Amino acid sequence: MALSRSCVVLSLLKSKVPFSSSCQFQLKTILPKYLLENQTRFISTTAVIDKTKKMVYETVEAGTPNGDDFRIYYKNENGPVSPLHDIPLFADSANNIFNMVVEIPRWTNAKMEIDTKAPLNPIKQDVKNGKLRYVANCFPHHGYIWNYGAFPQTWENPSHVDAHTNHKGDNDPIDVLEIGHRVAKRGEIIQVKVLGTIALIDEGETDWKIFTIDVKDPQAQQMNDINDIEKFFPGLLKASVEWFKIYKIPDGKPENKFAFNGEAKNSEFALNIVRETHKFWNGLVKKELDGGKLSCSNVTIEGSPFKIGLDEANNILNQAPKPGSAKGIDSIVDKWHFLHLK
Amino acid sequence: MALSRSCVVLSLLKSKVPFSSSCQFQLKTILPKYLLENQTRFISTTAVIDKTKKMVYETVEAGTPNGDDFRIYYKNENGPVSPLHDIPLFADSANNIFNMVVEIPRWTNAKMEIDTKAPLNPIKQDVKNGKLRYVANCFPHHGYIWNYGAFPQTWENPSHVDAHTNHKGDNDPIDVLEIGHRVAKRGEIIQVKVLGTIALIDEGETDWKIFTIDVKDPQAQQMNDINDIEKFFPGLLKASVEWFKIYKIPDGKPENKFAFNGEAKNSEFALNIVRETHKFWNGLVKKELDGGKLSCSNVTIEGSPFKIGLDEANNILNQAPKPGSAKGIDSIVDKWHFLHLK
Repeated sequence: MALSRSCVVLSLLKSKVPFSSSCQFQLKTILPKYLLENQTRFISTTAVIDKTKKMVYETVEAGTPNGDDFRIYYKNENGPVSPLHDIPLFADSANNIFNMVVEIPRWTNAKMEIDTKAPLNPIKQDVKNGKLRYVANCFPHHGYIWNYGAFPQTWENPSHVDAHTNHKGDNDPIDVLEIGHRVAKRGEIIQVKVLGTIALIDEGETDWKIFTIDVKDPQAQQMNDINDIEKFFPGLLKASVEWFKIYKIPDGKPENKFAFNGEAKNSEFALNIVRETHKFWNGLVKKELDGGKLSCSNVTIEGSPFKIGLDEANNILNQAPKPGSAKGIDSIVDKWHFLHLK
Repeated sequence: MALSRSCVVLSLLKSKVPFSSSCQFQLKTILPKYLLENQTRFISTTAVIDKTKKMVYETVEAGTPNGDDFRIYYKNENGPVSPLHDIPLFADSANNIFNMVVEIPRWTNAKMEIDTKAPLNPIKQDVKNGKLRYVANCFPHHGYIWNYGAFPQTWENPSHVDAHTNHKGDNDPIDVLEIGHRVAKRGEIIQVKVLGTIALIDEGETDWKIFTIDVKDPQAQQMNDINDIEKFFPGLLKASVEWFKIYKIPDGKPENKFAFNGEAKNSEFALNIVRETHKFWNGLVKKELDGGKLSCSNVTIEGSPFKIGLDEANNILNQAPKPGSAKGIDSIVDKWHFLHLK
């Protein structure tokens, strides 16, 4: 389904990079030289082909890596797109296969997220109290224990009280945990199937976490529902709930709570939640629901009053910060916090 | 004690790299360009100053990163040295501060180790059945859960039956686990204090694991003995024993066993073990004990029949493989294995 390797090659040939092989790891050597010589943007590419629309996406990095101006934008073959509004939720709707935007690769802890309030919704690192946010590593875990990200074209409506949790939505796209064996790349678009969900109650808001697996994972065919997680990955579901309960404690926050006592709901339940948040997004992007400060600029949604033209989209991307040399990261980011639930 | 930043600067100035700042992270951008333009060795630098001898070490990478010819050699201000024989065990003998060679940084799983049989003992990746060896990630852990490496100038004598374990030594330098908050760099030389030890019995051989903490870690001053690990890092000692018990099971090996039922011994006990293995090393390098196929070539040990001159040492380094572009790593290396002890 994904054609990332050939798409990388195509993108590089187009960019006149002296590219001798399709090996992604060589890019790490070649592209910094290219970047230095051309002082232009580092174009890394991830790709997804939607079965119906044959769309391919590239990521465009702007700003200073590890700096607060760092952004990851998206382009399709026509130009810039919003990963929140223009990448379709369904990669294959008949088979319930979804596109997932990977914000935080497994075993990393920089809190990267789709910027819901900025035009074209680039991925950026969250900033708390003026500092880039890194989520605490809570022993025995290292960073996020799944590839973590969001479903495009979903919105947890903050005006809607969820019938299951009795709490309103958290005003974000719905969160996705991908549990396959591969560590995804930041910004990658992958295709996943839905296994189940848990409902974090975060400061009084409903924050669904959807468990999924990459359809290309060797175990994906055997995994169809929530019970398959305990069957094939024993301990992961329990560790996931514990992870969310404690992950803000080192930052001085209380233990997080879950609806249903932390019990996970099955695939069918989760699919209904995803479809509901997709409907809310549809209302948002059509301006039938009030999105407040959210940026709904998009280039592909027919009937959306927020639809913009290619020139305007290019303008937004052209105004993004110029690339700079990567900044250092304080070693304290790697500290392991040792705390245990009572 | 360590002067790694200024030493990096000095090394770069010497190499005429266009180096604008002392930020280590900028090196990742600048040095690949330098490497491409000069087709010479990538010189990364880590430094230790021994309080008495004021020695500084650099690492020299040879071969193809992620390839089976990749090696990390060491140099001091005069030329190549062996990390096993020429880097002193004691950084500050009066205060029991030791030099540690970091082979495997925390949260990585490439099985890098000092090549005891090759001249000048570079660090290389272990090869099993013709393939580069990556240690299985056993849930909930990611790679090695400490900075892992060895004490220079030590040898677990395979002809000596240990009085405590009733097993012979494993023919390697003694293994060291550093538990401080910082993820060390591969090949780095750090200064540590000894907290205690556990005795793995690996295929009938004694394989001591010495728990240590980097003397520069903010918690190092408070930590002096084995009980301080449970006090400040609750769960780490138990997880460490479990980690060693299960880490070879995904590769088809049985559960590893420990002497003393896995009970950890205190700092004093561990110091005696380290001193004993230092004596065995001294016998080895003076050819009073038979080291078999071990390479004892060194450039600094007075009275050693294996001492070589600077020209010969330079010849060895000059014959090391030329650098190449990094190879890709199969994503299966990142697979999480879910298994639990009965």
